[in-house]
Amino acid sequence: MEAHEHPQQTAISEIGEFGLIAHMRDTLGEPEADSVVSGVADDAAVYRVDDGQVHLLTTDMLVEGIHFDRAFMPLEHLGFKALSVNVSDIVAMNAAPRYATVSVGIPQNTSVEMVETIYEGLDQACGAYDVTIVGGDTVAAHGLTLSVSVVGAAAESDVIYREGAQVGDKVCVTGDIGASFAGLKVLLRNRERLEEEGEDFDPKLDSYSYVIRRHLAPPAQLKAIREWADAGAQPHALIDISDGLAAEVHHICEASGVGAQLYEPALPIDPETRNVATDFGEDVSVYALFGGEDYELVFTMPEDDLDALDPQTYNVVGEVVTPDDPDDPVLLQRAHGENVPLQPDGFEHFDDSPPQQ
Amino acid sequence: MEAHEHPQQTAISEIGEFGLIAHMRDTLGEPEADSVVSGVADDAAVYRVDDGQVHLLTTDMLVEGIHFDRAFMPLEHLGFKALSVNVSDIVAMNAAPRYATVSVGIPQNTSVEMVETIYEGLDQACGAYDVTIVGGDTVAAHGLTLSVSVVGAAAESDVIYREGAQVGDKVCVTGDIGASFAGLKVLLRNRERLEEEGEDFDPKLDSYSYVIRRHLAPPAQLKAIREWADAGAQPHALIDISDGLAAEVHHICEASGVGAQLYEPALPIDPETRNVATDFGEDVSVYALFGGEDYELVFTMPEDDLDALDPQTYNVVGEVVTPDDPDDPVLLQRAHGENVPLQPDGFEHFDDSPPQQ
Repeated sequence: MEAHEHPQQTAISEIGEFGLIAHMRDTLGEPEADSVVSGVADDAAVYRVDDGQVHLLTTDMLVEGIHFDRAFMPLEHLGFKALSVNVSDIVAMNAAPRYATVSVGIPQNTSVEMVETIYEGLDQACGAYDVTIVGGDTVAAHGLTLSVSVVGAAAESDVIYREGAQVGDKVCVTGDIGASFAGLKVLLRNRERLEEEGEDFDPKLDSYSYVIRRHLAPPAQLKAIREWADAGAQPHALIDISDGLAAEVHHICEASGVGAQLYEPALPIDPETRNVATDFGEDVSVYALFGGEDYELVFTMPEDDLDALDPQTYNVVGEVVTPDDPDDPVLLQRAHGENVPLQPDGFEHFDDSPPQQ
Repeated sequence: MEAHEHPQQTAISEIGEFGLIAHMRDTLGEPEADSVVSGVADDAAVYRVDDGQVHLLTTDMLVEGIHFDRAFMPLEHLGFKALSVNVSDIVAMNAAPRYATVSVGIPQNTSVEMVETIYEGLDQACGAYDVTIVGGDTVAAHGLTLSVSVVGAAAESDVIYREGAQVGDKVCVTGDIGASFAGLKVLLRNRERLEEEGEDFDPKLDSYSYVIRRHLAPPAQLKAIREWADAGAQPHALIDISDGLAAEVHHICEASGVGAQLYEPALPIDPETRNVATDFGEDVSVYALFGGEDYELVFTMPEDDLDALDPQTYNVVGEVVTPDDPDDPVLLQRAHGENVPLQPDGFEHFDDSPPQQ
């Protein structure tokens, strides 16, 4: 036998991100504080601040070269997006965002004007979402890093989790999906062409301005939850689309112990997103189902309650069902009629696999 | 005249960290929300959650190669310290820490076991401070990065700011100071020797175990604020020592519109810290005044109120005074009797300048 001087080292790739999160949860154990209503299981943590009132807390870190490329991410949009993705997590619990802290890791090649531009984007987002930045930290770093935390507030009875979906609910999506991924495709291709063709390259961004904006500065759907409150209608289950519709519907089904039947022709897709997919010779449903970063909301609601909502603000994409096969809780009826199991990240079930950023 | 294609770019070094923070505050403007009691001006932000009750929010980011060196920072201590420094900011407002989020940026050369070890340190700190980690984010990054946010709670009337110091108060310090800096000196020298002497090098860490621990895993002084609550004594002004005693007393004086007279012989310094300074042929008062990262508390309190406290838990290091010269609000009476203006980061007023990490 060999003597081992060092304890065993496991590569993170062996267990994946979700495996790593499970390890960390095991290390920390279950929250002991009675005031914690919900810990790391949903989009944001929920804790009581007063009789019937809760606060919600979420955090996200964006790292240069991993989550964004400074070559095509304007810094103002970066600031806006960093707050948006956190606000989206609060909104995805049906709560109002209130306060934020922003830590910025700043590499040496960053000017004061660049940092100001990031803060202008943050300030724009604060205005859009009625959020106040109350603190933060600025430190030196090797790559530009933004770490944002947002506190939200709600009545405890108003908070909506992933776990409330009931058989018979309609599965609905706000806005349109797949546009952020289409925007990323265009931006990546433009960067490639710029490198190949140099100054002669004309990016023709005008024809793709919607999808590019959806990728660079996606808005959080605060207006949707405000509309529900005004209409007195409350979804049973709610989540935002960061990983793609397929993954989010799986999260809802897993948490709620239900299945879902989705319909491909019902997926809400902007014409510009379709044009990009056509341009690339790819299946636009792949963008919509697996693209992610749309920050639209997926919710389930009984059909009768939907009547209270403005039909312009959402699309029904399927139903909550009792799954025939618990291993394949989500089915997708394709445009040509076939009903296939939908994997959370199942590009392989489709004709083509879009590239990863 | 030259044509400028690009707007002016200012190096951050030209305006410094405090200049940068001022720029960012200008960009964001003053907090508009009525519920915000105090924004970015103190150790943590304060906002109302209920009649008479406030929450506090703080965040800190630690970056590999900037704030810590993996060569001598055990990952367990890194996890402990990342939570400690945030808890210290909450404690420095006389509030109890409650909830935390932890975002970890993980470089490729990091194993599952290494991440687990960081979380073991975080879990230890959760136990020590009665904090629950309720959420977080794990992302890929170029250097190991920990971004922690902590929410604290207090009665609004119990929150202590930097701005409450009154002429006649005693200036007090919990525990001892300068030890963290002494520990850093020893660790840096050991790394240098290890590089020079290789495996023959004996670090003799035992003789410096206290100061090394104070650098690697400084505790937040939650027990001090609990003692004050039990004793019914409340400081007028409070801050924690992250930048060094001299800087923190300046912060209190500036916020409170007062001056301070400090006494060098009164600085509480551990014998081991003195030994390190002697070893390096340096002035131990420099460690205590400018070293920083002690995470002890500086507070001002009337002498009568101090009677209620256990004299073992603090040292009086000076008095709050009306400054003779507003440009030099803090004076230090040196051991040999001379009374000199103390600069916030004024190594130049002393005999030797310790190196920066």
